[in-house]
Amino acid sequence: MATAPLLTDDALSPEAAEVFADIRATRGTDYVNNFWRALAHDPATLKATWERLKGLMGPGALDPLTKELIYIAVSVANGCEYCVHSHTAAAKAKGMTEAMRAELLAVIGMAAQTNALSTALQVPVDERFKA
Amino acid sequence: MATAPLLTDDALSPEAAEVFADIRATRGTDYVNNFWRALAHDPATLKATWERLKGLMGPGALDPLTKELIYIAVSVANGCEYCVHSHTAAAKAKGMTEAMRAELLAVIGMAAQTNALSTALQVPVDERFKA
Amino acid sequence: MATAPLLTDDALSPEAAEVFADIRATRGTDYVNNFWRALAHDPATLKATWERLKGLMGPGALDPLTKELIYIAVSVANGCEYCVHSHTAAAKAKGMTEAMRAELLAVIGMAAQTNALSTALQVPVDERFKA
Amino acid sequence: MATAPLLTDDALSPEAAEVFADIRATRGTDYVNNFWRALAHDPATLKATWERLKGLMGPGALDPLTKELIYIAVSVANGCEYCVHSHTAAAKAKGMTEAMRAELLAVIGMAAQTNALSTALQVPVDERFKA
Amino acid sequence: MATAPLLTDDALSPEAAEVFADIRATRGTDYVNNFWRALAHDPATLKATWERLKGLMGPGALDPLTKELIYIAVSVANGCEYCVHSHTAAAKAKGMTEAMRAELLAVIGMAAQTNALSTALQVPVDERFKA
Amino acid sequence: MATAPLLTDDALSPEAAEVFADIRATRGTDYVNNFWRALAHDPATLKATWERLKGLMGPGALDPLTKELIYIAVSVANGCEYCVHSHTAAAKAKGMTEAMRAELLAVIGMAAQTNALSTALQVPVDERFKA
Repeated sequence: MATAPLLTDDALSPEAAEVFADIRATRGTDYVNNFWRALAHDPATLKATWERLKGLMGPGALDPLTKELIYIAVSVANGCEYCVHSHTAAAKAKGMTEAMRAELLAVIGMAAQTNALSTALQVPVDERFKA
Repeated sequence: MATAPLLTDDALSPEAAEVFADIRATRGTDYVNNFWRALAHDPATLKATWERLKGLMGPGALDPLTKELIYIAVSVANGCEYCVHSHTAAAKAKGMTEAMRAELLAVIGMAAQTNALSTALQVPVDERFKA
Repeated sequence: MATAPLLTDDALSPEAAEVFADIRATRGTDYVNNFWRALAHDPATLKATWERLKGLMGPGALDPLTKELIYIAVSVANGCEYCVHSHTAAAKAKGMTEAMRAELLAVIGMAAQTNALSTALQVPVDERFKA
Repeated sequence: MATAPLLTDDALSPEAAEVFADIRATRGTDYVNNFWRALAHDPATLKATWERLKGLMGPGALDPLTKELIYIAVSVANGCEYCVHSHTAAAKAKGMTEAMRAELLAVIGMAAQTNALSTALQVPVDERFKA
Repeated sequence: MATAPLLTDDALSPEAAEVFADIRATRGTDYVNNFWRALAHDPATLKATWERLKGLMGPGALDPLTKELIYIAVSVANGCEYCVHSHTAAAKAKGMTEAMRAELLAVIGMAAQTNALSTALQVPVDERFKA
Repeated sequence: MATAPLLTDDALSPEAAEVFADIRATRGTDYVNNFWRALAHDPATLKATWERLKGLMGPGALDPLTKELIYIAVSVANGCEYCVHSHTAAAKAKGMTEAMRAELLAVIGMAAQTNALSTALQVPVDERFKA
């Protein structure tokens, strides 16, 4: 249950409606997911978040699917249930296969484990790893 | 400062020495980094961790560089200083360019931000995201 | 679903009942929320937690609403669903407006982002920031 | 030790130099702290981060000091050493007294404790807390 | 809702079926809990995870119940709902009394609080604590 | 570097001095570690924290060493460098052997891994695990 109602299209401010229109146009679908509907109470943050996300997640030095995998990894480590679901769906839509997903999860789990071991051991950074 | 001394080669148990030999052979370098030296006090965990890592981080459905990027992402989210340094070095060695690194960090930062917003808003998962 | 049953008033130990009476008197309401009912299995921790909370959250160098905003911020960063809901409700009861909530969330999101960037970059602390 | 060199003024790209100029003008000081120097390798993220931060941290529905306290709270919960130092310094510059700081820390500690207890108990959200 | 369907026995690969058989034999029960059913999509990680867990959680320098308490503590700090539930159940099955559970939670809460205070204060490690 | 100076004995308020005297008497040593010196700026929180800690960490349903192991586990998961060091030292002083420490770390690492996997998979809680 959200801490604020999810806004339906007819409850949007003009500024939020413009962002929703851009989400629809950019994604080529009429569906606007709950994250944006919850965020729409604050059109300024809605707009800033959407525009930054749109700018970042397209093709660049990293391909869009790789970025979704990174997004999932961070979302898992931060324990964000919504984000794990939404970015898993996005990664599948961008071509994540079952085999890729299996490796992604195995790497996330391994990283969590060695992160914990390194922190427990308080391992000092090797000189050669310093920039 | 580690919570246990870093073991030098002459202080290793035979079991740990075998793992170190495999690390050197696999990586093609004589250098064994501090994580393994701190972990060498417990040869069983040293061996299990190294073997699982070796098995996971090579080529597969995801390429080795992509796995390093995912590893960095998890390590940042978990706040592991050592791991951020060691896997940033590993990613560079596997071909991460400055442009890729810039995008990686931007995505990690963006994910952390929308993770926080989703959690603050307690956004319910969209039906269509459920498997 | 709680990992322990929520205690109803008639299942309380005398010590827990006393704490519940104080919660009701302090807050001026008969309603005792689920957190305290789950904690009531351990009257010592119930009492210590309630008394410390009562002492901290009233007026002081910081006003009660500011303290609730801080509480929400920590709860979001720690990913505590219950706490996000209960302290969002408490902040509203103490006067948090929609505009304040929008700024709170924007700051929490921004902090999460720059926290991640600082950790990824392992930025050294400026000399002038040291106490 | 940063994972990338801190850029000095003469190593900045024109786009980064412009951001640094705006940081100096906005803050009324020649000093640009290490976070921005580490981020300057990626002028696009530098600019987006600075502009969003500048827009958020000024006066609004919440006063600038309150926002710094919230920033500290998130940074502590996320374990960001750099951010704890830099925003503690910023909060002092904006008027945080010793008494305010003492209460801030006490609230952060209390929230961390009840976050943990709520998670351990998996307390279900009260109906009345739902929006 | 899992991000992948929970596999029923008749949907298992031969390799996953073997792991399930070992889980049943080791635990002396026909019941295989959801974690393994969700993980069964990736038989390699299923097998590696189960075998490592089986090896670790039995009697050793620490008794099995103590290990479950440690497991709960980590799961709470990481905010893993499933893990808190499953390891609380496991700890009860291994003899955790109500009094032990009360102390466990009180210690977890106390640690979370002093962790936050130490991080907020950025307390330097005492020379005598260094190994 | 702490965000507040560590108070020496001659800089303590009378209330803080009393707490320091109790720390010394309880522990049977003249040494007061840095955490308390950093916290001494706020005598009220110093006193509340010390008294709660003293009450919790002695013998009870769980023995003092087990509680230190739990404390380490939480501190690792929360990434608290100071706490990992101080409680590792405390656990050694209370009898933690190398073999116990090895198992502790292995369990912490394993828990971190399965926490991450459970979160990535969003495994639903089994009916039989519910209280």
